Amino acid sequence: MTRQVEESSEAERIACWLAEHDRFARRLNIRLEHAQPGTCRVSMPVEAGILNGFGMTHGAATFALADFAFAVASNSRGRQAVGLTTTLHYTAPSAEGDTLTAVATEQALGGTTAVYQVEVRRGDGAVVGLFTGTAYRRRAPFFSDGTEE
Amino acid sequence: MTRQVEESSEAERIACWLAEHDRFARRLNIRLEHAQPGTCRVSMPVEAGILNGFGMTHGAATFALADFAFAVASNSRGRQAVGLTTTLHYTAPSAEGDTLTAVATEQALGGTTAVYQVEVRRGDGAVVGLFTGTAYRRRAPFFSDGTEE
Amino acid sequence: MTRQVEESSEAERIACWLAEHDRFARRLNIRLEHAQPGTCRVSMPVEAGILNGFGMTHGAATFALADFAFAVASNSRGRQAVGLTTTLHYTAPSAEGDTLTAVATEQALGGTTAVYQVEVRRGDGAVVGLFTGTAYRRRAPFFSDGTEE
Amino acid sequence: MTRQVEESSEAERIACWLAEHDRFARRLNIRLEHAQPGTCRVSMPVEAGILNGFGMTHGAATFALADFAFAVASNSRGRQAVGLTTTLHYTAPSAEGDTLTAVATEQALGGTTAVYQVEVRRGDGAVVGLFTGTAYRRRAPFFSDGTEE
Repeated sequence: MTRQVEESSEAERIACWLAEHDRFARRLNIRLEHAQPGTCRVSMPVEAGILNGFGMTHGAATFALADFAFAVASNSRGRQAVGLTTTLHYTAPSAEGDTLTAVATEQALGGTTAVYQVEVRRGDGAVVGLFTGTAYRRRAPFFSDGTEE
Repeated sequence: MTRQVEESSEAERIACWLAEHDRFARRLNIRLEHAQPGTCRVSMPVEAGILNGFGMTHGAATFALADFAFAVASNSRGRQAVGLTTTLHYTAPSAEGDTLTAVATEQALGGTTAVYQVEVRRGDGAVVGLFTGTAYRRRAPFFSDGTEE
Repeated sequence: MTRQVEESSEAERIACWLAEHDRFARRLNIRLEHAQPGTCRVSMPVEAGILNGFGMTHGAATFALADFAFAVASNSRGRQAVGLTTTLHYTAPSAEGDTLTAVATEQALGGTTAVYQVEVRRGDGAVVGLFTGTAYRRRAPFFSDGTEE
Repeated sequence: MTRQVEESSEAERIACWLAEHDRFARRLNIRLEHAQPGTCRVSMPVEAGILNGFGMTHGAATFALADFAFAVASNSRGRQAVGLTTTLHYTAPSAEGDTLTAVATEQALGGTTAVYQVEVRRGDGAVVGLFTGTAYRRRAPFFSDGTEE
């Protein structure tokens, strides 16, 4: 296998591991759609259980979707990554029945930190949230203690 | 009643309404402990369902707790408030069995926007997250269409 | 004139007014390169006076460049805009002799708030900073009291 | 000397070194008032050269003051610290003739990262800006290559 194919394959294995073992993401029915080194696409249906008191999608549920995309993308490089700082700008509301899709893009990949941006969109294409996350990259490979394949 | 008592009483009614109608907060067993105009204290037990793939408290669950404190504090002034921007700095991990407590403090209250800081602590007092939220203040009173008492 | 040409022309007039009247931007030799409704490109030479104690470009100077792009883009819609919240992620250093270029893009434009992202790059194309700004949009037109043409 | 006195003394030496070698801070007449391990107080007069196009203090100048407090506080622990992410919430304006004071407080100090909050106030005590900064802590001691005492 070429090195590119290997890395792509490892990114997919990591993404699948996270989708399977992240209980919070599973409770929200977050679905992994696509993962490659440094990027991914995930989605979440807006169901009654994630509405706020005003009947709109809860900001914390939008955050959870963006944060899961951040986790997948930042871990996809093969080393364990943990979030240091996240910022979420809310740009439009969404409501029950919508499906939200989040796409993460790597903006910077350094030896010890990395930065990702995540766009969250409604089914009609409108951006509902803009998320930026800075991750700390541990030296440990992703598949080690606690994350056996 | 004096004006101060009235405002305090209204803040409590708003906080209780949100604690009752916020389905996402209820799913996470978030508990309202105290609310006054511009401030509140809420807590959440760290249960198995809010762990991430590494077995630690999910960043999105810590966010959800801080965000609920932000919602209560920013709506407590009697006008509907919606989040514009939130930032969360993770400062320490927490684990199953911990109880997290979030305290929101009003930093600025303008005619159209307001800023709140939220500190999230573990039972042993260590700060696990520092959250800042900017809210947009609608002209509509909190108890109007959609939020009848 | 078509409406699009008028708006484009107004955005340019606003951008030029800001470039001329922003004394802080002028002290830093920030240069306006291009402005259209909701977007702009500006640049700044890295001179000795904007280095930090370690001899690299000062983070506050990188911020100043990004912030000026944010100001131009958010005011370009013809209404006065003021910054509410800004976030800057530093992704790479730059040094004396570099020229930094910042491009602002409109991410959301609402009735009362708007969100812009700004990428700051070195001459070799590397991203040195990722900036996000939320602006409050006043009802007053840009060219009114204090900003006569 | 006790260890506490030594650390306090080192924090002061580092703060003085930064105040002397940070050319950008010097151009803005930023003044170091107090420094101890993890905290400091700095001030800046609002002069004509740091006004924006609307005649108010430039957001980037308020940022520069907060950022300098962040730099002093994060380096004060004796290891070189560099900014990863900064967030600034603007809460009130200030004008020519004001003196702004920024106080930095350490919120978290880990092995590789640390978080600081900075409050910027006008002379009348009103908060004009709330800043949070995450720093990466290099292993190198502050006084090494490039920063000889």
